[in-house]
Amino acid sequence: MILDKNRIAEFNGLHASAHKRKFDFLASEINNVEDVLQKLIDFQVAIPSWALGTGGTRFGRFAGAGEPGSLEQKLEDVGLLHALNQSSGAISLHIPWDIPENYASIKAQAAQLGLQFDAVNSNTFQDQKDQELSYKFGSLQHVNKAVRKQAIEHNIDVIKHGVELGSKSLTVWLSDGSCFPGQLNFRKAFQNTLESLQEIYATLPEDWKVFVEYKAFEPNFYSMTVGDWGQSLLYANKLGPKAYTLVDLGHHLPNANIEQIVSLLLMEGKLAGFHFNDSKYGDDDLTVGSIKPYQLFLIFNELVEGMDARAMDHATDLGWMIDASHNVKDPLEDLLQSVEAIMLAYAQALTVDRKKLNAAQEANDVVAAQEILQNTFRTDLRPLVAEARLRSGAALYPLQFFRDQQLRAELIKERGTKTIATGL
Amino acid sequence: MILDKNRIAEFNGLHASAHKRKFDFLASEINNVEDVLQKLIDFQVAIPSWALGTGGTRFGRFAGAGEPGSLEQKLEDVGLLHALNQSSGAISLHIPWDIPENYASIKAQAAQLGLQFDAVNSNTFQDQKDQELSYKFGSLQHVNKAVRKQAIEHNIDVIKHGVELGSKSLTVWLSDGSCFPGQLNFRKAFQNTLESLQEIYATLPEDWKVFVEYKAFEPNFYSMTVGDWGQSLLYANKLGPKAYTLVDLGHHLPNANIEQIVSLLLMEGKLAGFHFNDSKYGDDDLTVGSIKPYQLFLIFNELVEGMDARAMDHATDLGWMIDASHNVKDPLEDLLQSVEAIMLAYAQALTVDRKKLNAAQEANDVVAAQEILQNTFRTDLRPLVAEARLRSGAALYPLQFFRDQQLRAELIKERGTKTIATGL
Amino acid sequence: MILDKNRIAEFNGLHASAHKRKFDFLASEINNVEDVLQKLIDFQVAIPSWALGTGGTRFGRFAGAGEPGSLEQKLEDVGLLHALNQSSGAISLHIPWDIPENYASIKAQAAQLGLQFDAVNSNTFQDQKDQELSYKFGSLQHVNKAVRKQAIEHNIDVIKHGVELGSKSLTVWLSDGSCFPGQLNFRKAFQNTLESLQEIYATLPEDWKVFVEYKAFEPNFYSMTVGDWGQSLLYANKLGPKAYTLVDLGHHLPNANIEQIVSLLLMEGKLAGFHFNDSKYGDDDLTVGSIKPYQLFLIFNELVEGMDARAMDHATDLGWMIDASHNVKDPLEDLLQSVEAIMLAYAQALTVDRKKLNAAQEANDVVAAQEILQNTFRTDLRPLVAEARLRSGAALYPLQFFRDQQLRAELIKERGTKTIATGL
Amino acid sequence: MILDKNRIAEFNGLHASAHKRKFDFLASEINNVEDVLQKLIDFQVAIPSWALGTGGTRFGRFAGAGEPGSLEQKLEDVGLLHALNQSSGAISLHIPWDIPENYASIKAQAAQLGLQFDAVNSNTFQDQKDQELSYKFGSLQHVNKAVRKQAIEHNIDVIKHGVELGSKSLTVWLSDGSCFPGQLNFRKAFQNTLESLQEIYATLPEDWKVFVEYKAFEPNFYSMTVGDWGQSLLYANKLGPKAYTLVDLGHHLPNANIEQIVSLLLMEGKLAGFHFNDSKYGDDDLTVGSIKPYQLFLIFNELVEGMDARAMDHATDLGWMIDASHNVKDPLEDLLQSVEAIMLAYAQALTVDRKKLNAAQEANDVVAAQEILQNTFRTDLRPLVAEARLRSGAALYPLQFFRDQQLRAELIKERGTKTIATGL
Repeated sequence: MILDKNRIAEFNGLHASAHKRKFDFLASEINNVEDVLQKLIDFQVAIPSWALGTGGTRFGRFAGAGEPGSLEQKLEDVGLLHALNQSSGAISLHIPWDIPENYASIKAQAAQLGLQFDAVNSNTFQDQKDQELSYKFGSLQHVNKAVRKQAIEHNIDVIKHGVELGSKSLTVWLSDGSCFPGQLNFRKAFQNTLESLQEIYATLPEDWKVFVEYKAFEPNFYSMTVGDWGQSLLYANKLGPKAYTLVDLGHHLPNANIEQIVSLLLMEGKLAGFHFNDSKYGDDDLTVGSIKPYQLFLIFNELVEGMDARAMDHATDLGWMIDASHNVKDPLEDLLQSVEAIMLAYAQALTVDRKKLNAAQEANDVVAAQEILQNTFRTDLRPLVAEARLRSGAALYPLQFFRDQQLRAELIKERGTKTIATGL
Repeated sequence: MILDKNRIAEFNGLHASAHKRKFDFLASEINNVEDVLQKLIDFQVAIPSWALGTGGTRFGRFAGAGEPGSLEQKLEDVGLLHALNQSSGAISLHIPWDIPENYASIKAQAAQLGLQFDAVNSNTFQDQKDQELSYKFGSLQHVNKAVRKQAIEHNIDVIKHGVELGSKSLTVWLSDGSCFPGQLNFRKAFQNTLESLQEIYATLPEDWKVFVEYKAFEPNFYSMTVGDWGQSLLYANKLGPKAYTLVDLGHHLPNANIEQIVSLLLMEGKLAGFHFNDSKYGDDDLTVGSIKPYQLFLIFNELVEGMDARAMDHATDLGWMIDASHNVKDPLEDLLQSVEAIMLAYAQALTVDRKKLNAAQEANDVVAAQEILQNTFRTDLRPLVAEARLRSGAALYPLQFFRDQQLRAELIKERGTKTIATGL
Repeated sequence: MILDKNRIAEFNGLHASAHKRKFDFLASEINNVEDVLQKLIDFQVAIPSWALGTGGTRFGRFAGAGEPGSLEQKLEDVGLLHALNQSSGAISLHIPWDIPENYASIKAQAAQLGLQFDAVNSNTFQDQKDQELSYKFGSLQHVNKAVRKQAIEHNIDVIKHGVELGSKSLTVWLSDGSCFPGQLNFRKAFQNTLESLQEIYATLPEDWKVFVEYKAFEPNFYSMTVGDWGQSLLYANKLGPKAYTLVDLGHHLPNANIEQIVSLLLMEGKLAGFHFNDSKYGDDDLTVGSIKPYQLFLIFNELVEGMDARAMDHATDLGWMIDASHNVKDPLEDLLQSVEAIMLAYAQALTVDRKKLNAAQEANDVVAAQEILQNTFRTDLRPLVAEARLRSGAALYPLQFFRDQQLRAELIKERGTKTIATGL
Repeated sequence: MILDKNRIAEFNGLHASAHKRKFDFLASEINNVEDVLQKLIDFQVAIPSWALGTGGTRFGRFAGAGEPGSLEQKLEDVGLLHALNQSSGAISLHIPWDIPENYASIKAQAAQLGLQFDAVNSNTFQDQKDQELSYKFGSLQHVNKAVRKQAIEHNIDVIKHGVELGSKSLTVWLSDGSCFPGQLNFRKAFQNTLESLQEIYATLPEDWKVFVEYKAFEPNFYSMTVGDWGQSLLYANKLGPKAYTLVDLGHHLPNANIEQIVSLLLMEGKLAGFHFNDSKYGDDDLTVGSIKPYQLFLIFNELVEGMDARAMDHATDLGWMIDASHNVKDPLEDLLQSVEAIMLAYAQALTVDRKKLNAAQEANDVVAAQEILQNTFRTDLRPLVAEARLRSGAALYPLQFFRDQQLRAELIKERGTKTIATGL
């Protein structure tokens, strides 16, 4: 399904005056509103190809209807999201779930939909049919060099697919680790993993980056071989200037201060970017901003502060991606909610009065510092985000549009009720 | 495969004298050693039918070979475990994964293997093929009465299977809950669940119990409708005298003091029993005693103290079951390790000097109280547990026997390498 | 210091028109705005007498200046807060830190300041000078009956003080518990505590309530004898209709779903009320709403829903109190921030569209349910709260007023820089 | 009090034959028993000067009797511990709580007691009387250079004291951090701290080390400026070869895998050593081994493996210190329990069959790897530790000796019941 732009224009027309009233009211209170709007327009969040179907847990999976059954249909879905919000102009492919059969036609389709190919993702946490050696006991860490070799080759293969599509980065998430004390020699597991990453790194094209993602636990339940930001940074530093640390919000121990980690990784010039989601207990992969929206704002607050301190380009110097699972929601609706939460947090961070905040910090005026952040967070910036959408040709209210226009029903009509998207 | 008893006798013969030396040395230091041995011999831990195959996570599953492909083979496996340790004399069936086709033949097989049928388990956390209504949004809590009805009927059906087999209890674990704030009205979810449980309770045979299991999170990631022992106890109290609270070690928030919960549930006469496993992060379902063996001992310490205070029969008044997943181990080896850890913790609890402990508590002598528990825990009681096995005809060292005799190889020969057991 | 009302009027005059513009804009979007405003006006949060001085940790305490040095000055401080926001019309005394020497004069002072006496609090977690027996090993749980007796007498004494002042409830927070495995017999500790509470309960005046507060850990680091809501509810149910469970937001294990607990306690008719604060790691006692404002809203959402379902009076049927520590902030500024956060969360909960939420829940429309809550939370309701203040004679912006008018400087002038308030 | 060696000899005489029987039985099962015994004899754990008095929490402190009232008496206490176990041959001083007035006499006393001076500890988490600038908002991180300067000077001063006494390392634990979002600019706080540490580092004598201790939370409750091992390692790497990361067992987020951290820090050549204690919830500072003894063993397992892999000297190449608080126990008894737990865990680690473990790891034989560690842990090695004590002239059973001989009563007689030791 390709969305006719007139439908959006018509929808926006219906809501234009009410929106204008709210936006004007808000705009009068914000400095540099045009600058903020431009940054919001430029900001794009990649959609992972595996997030377009209903997810599941180890206990079960309750599939939805009208899910994409092919890579082409996944692109269509991201294209639809992008048409609705003009903030989802990239797709992140997962190999081997989404191996393109014809690069040229896939690239043409993406171009038509206004989509870039974001980081490509390798998968060595599952065994694929006809795979020679098993990853049951790890991949890049494996005690058996042949298994490591197989996993290295797979990653190199993923890079090749990415090169064909125009991606510029490889994300390596390893489930490698151990379930029981004694299972692993931690040091050797680290060193094997490092060596394997070095072989992959050596094949990276000149203008590519590699993102080393960390995770505290699951699916290994005693140790993870890239378990926290400290470990990931060790790898990234040993690998070289093209290696970075990727932060997934759900991959931390309880109560971790993620915003501080972000700030320090930016300070070190080693932040790769983000996998956005939200969680209450573990790697729950819930909709972004659905549980701890203030934390999300605090993270964006550090991102904006730290990127500006290094004169980085918000839209292009880091990788932004959603990585969530939608067990009880329509995936597209969930993704619209996630992107909205991200844009809102970004807008909040952009409108923090940094001069005042800095002055409060220099004066140890804790009360004022808190007030500055809270005042920003309590301000209703939804009209600002909607205005950015309006100006870029998106729907003022993407989720409402999706529902009003019954787009899922259209997709079901096209695809049927029994398709199941690849992914977790 | 039915194990020839002579193989065990022969094995024990090889190790008898070394064992005797250790046991005699130990026995001289323990009071009432005969009484303790008898209790160890009597103590039986049920094996769940779903734990006989290799488990998995949402990220993948790496199956093993020689897994049981039918209910009969599952009984065989438990029979094998029981032959090896004489402590696994019960099986806990999970419906619909293990619906018996012929009660009489299954019962005959169980009798031959010396196995009882422990609690039967219902499953409303997955949709089964051809199931009319979905449990995507819960089962006993569901806003739609028809869904609740279907789930109630399923539980009643499970009871019927249990009655045929000679089970005496139903375990209800509900994944019911919500993934997002707002999704549920907590009160109504509780009340719907209570009503549903009441309908099930009403059909319980006279001499049956129902066990209400709680879990803090997963697969629902915002709220669970039976989320902690307090909630479970509310249900159990409202249901009546046949309802009890079941404790699964992995179903708690981080750092919970489980031994205190056990003590209070015993005080209230509402402890159903246990699902044993171990964990570091969440419901990791690791081998019992593999992560926090001292906690396991402390739990058994409360169990023995509390059961004795109520003059309960250790072996029969509570339900004991393993509930673990074996993602990187041979399931039978893992279960042998789990049972060993349970027996050891039980032996430790039986040999605590309660008179001295009580005196230390009454004197607020914290140092002495700690010493008493630690001294017991630091004492090597493995020869005691082995002696209990020896006397009951089991192998002195079950895991070693399993490996020495290459029993898995025999099973693979019988069953092939591609069988996959039903379960998680 | 007694604040001249003209100063507030003058301040409000300066900000009136800007406020009006914002309020009018907001009011047009809210149903029943007058009803909501009245509820906001009626809602009062008690200030604990120990929260008026700078707090500390076990590592140190960095006192502020101008702190109240007597009970009279503490009342003055609460009176000042109440004059500023008209939402802090009650003080909660802590015995023995604040034993009134002359009831009549204290009551007269309170009346003049418009203050009620909220719950009185006992203290058996510290030894007082000249105290006969020590609480080192607990108070109401103590193995020694004489110690329990002393603690019971203290609680009865606290009730007597409360009766004289017009309080209607006793809050019992016990630090009782243990630091090491073996130290306590959990069951006996529970039973001793229950018996002690029963003796206290028996002396409660007809129209009094007793609030049993729970806490997961600290200052005891292995077990707490009233450790969670389940335990507290056990006590409350065994005590009788005048006993209730008190929730302190910081007293839970990591990731606990507090809003669900609130809902269930309301369902059971056993919720006493709240100790408000915020936290990231443990009982951090941070400013309300400073870390997890969305959680605070979700809790109020359950409170409003649950109180309305039972036709309870929001302002009077439950106890509302702040219980925070101010280690790096001016205590009065911190309390103003806390009350503001509470009022805002309450306003949010009052403006949730319950009919729509209920419909979404009944339809399992998870996306819509989340949208409804998030839309409310994202709406900027500060003008509504300010309007409620304006109408009740308080300052539109209490914190700004406190700072603009340099009220702390006035207090320092009156009291000096070296006064240290009693408390933690 | 100086302990007469004959008392120990006499005590050991009484228990010699029973001990010999146990030790001989055990020794026959252990390889290289003499080598293990020598390592146990050589291993010394430093006692911090602040751990000799009863500790407390922010809620209160229940002092004991006979506590040391001066530095001389603290040395006496450590001397007493060392006489009892010959494993506590070092004291770690905390400045300014323990400023020596006369180096020569203190050194002479220490020499007489057989004590070394371990790492010296600075304190910038409290304000001292007559201190010019406050550490309320941090010390080495402070936005005000003058405060940083003061804190730097204090650390340099501490080094000077250490040089006089023969210490070879400085431990820097910073409570620096923030309590509220916005309070700190994380990057600037890091950079200020780094600069401050660099100034301190520049004054380190040639043969000194500096230990940078990290802590996840408390007393700051939003962020800590040296919050985890990753941050500490960043500092240590930027400082240079004399800087190391110090691990305190209680300073982690819930569920952290500390043994993996230890392994990686050893791999990097950056592990300073340990502050031993135990905990269930946070930095509970409980007796070593009282809550998670298996974790303690796993940590020592990594230490031995990692030190051997780098050919390090177990006894001298890392710093070993207890850092616990004794709120409900006699401090000396508690310390004896802690040292015993440490020695036992070390003995366990020394007797792991590394060759077999390595083979199991190389074969991904998870079951065998677990068995090897558990078998070691389940073996009762107390006679081995006792034998090491016997050979070094210590008491076979130090705690029992302390109690039998009523040493605390002797100390009370000397010092009275009202002395309170400095410390937390």
